[in-house]
Amino acid sequence: MQIDIQFTDHPIVAPKLDLPSREIGAAVEFHGIVREMENDRALTGLFYEAYEPMARRVLEKHFVELGALHGCVAVRFIHRTGWVPVCEASLYLSVVSSHRREALLFLADAIDRLKLDVPIWKRVV
Amino acid sequence: MQIDIQFTDHPIVAPKLDLPSREIGAAVEFHGIVREMENDRALTGLFYEAYEPMARRVLEKHFVELGALHGCVAVRFIHRTGWVPVCEASLYLSVVSSHRREALLFLADAIDRLKLDVPIWKRVV
Repeated sequence: MQIDIQFTDHPIVAPKLDLPSREIGAAVEFHGIVREMENDRALTGLFYEAYEPMARRVLEKHFVELGALHGCVAVRFIHRTGWVPVCEASLYLSVVSSHRREALLFLADAIDRLKLDVPIWKRVV
Repeated sequence: MQIDIQFTDHPIVAPKLDLPSREIGAAVEFHGIVREMENDRALTGLFYEAYEPMARRVLEKHFVELGALHGCVAVRFIHRTGWVPVCEASLYLSVVSSHRREALLFLADAIDRLKLDVPIWKRVV
């Protein structure tokens, strides 16, 4: 499993897809975007903080496990930190695999796990 | 449901994501890529043909149904026709919704339906 984890305090630019083999049949990219309404309150954005060394370790563990479980080949994770305005992405996640089902399952599980125990926090400021 | 369906005989260029409202929280992009091995035979590519008028009608029906079912806001579909070399995309599909689960379900269902009854054929040449 190729794993690339990045944190940035700049707007996320989706990287060019990288296909590590000629057996890649599916690439899925997910963009998590800041929405205006949260609990009936209109936001202008959210502020994200991460404890990066631990976030990297936990993410890497999850990605290794999920890559083995679903048979995926490479994952790229980018999380924006600091102020993220409404309509901009706080999260980018891409995964490549031989078949589409594996990549979609990986993605769904990876985002669930991200919310579970990865030290990244958002707050309304 | 905003629906955009395109066929092209050129390499697919993923369009810039278009967010139709400030309540979009998830955007998912799928790239279906031609793999080298099919039934133990190494290919150099596949040749795709579509009966476009009917393909558009059937796709639009599916997208309307799935958009209502899963609560998605916009979908963009691009299929390449003609010769597609290994490692290049034959299909691009993007969907945006308020929450990630809806977009991932839409995508999985849409690709299943695409294989079911949309008049797009591939052949080894």
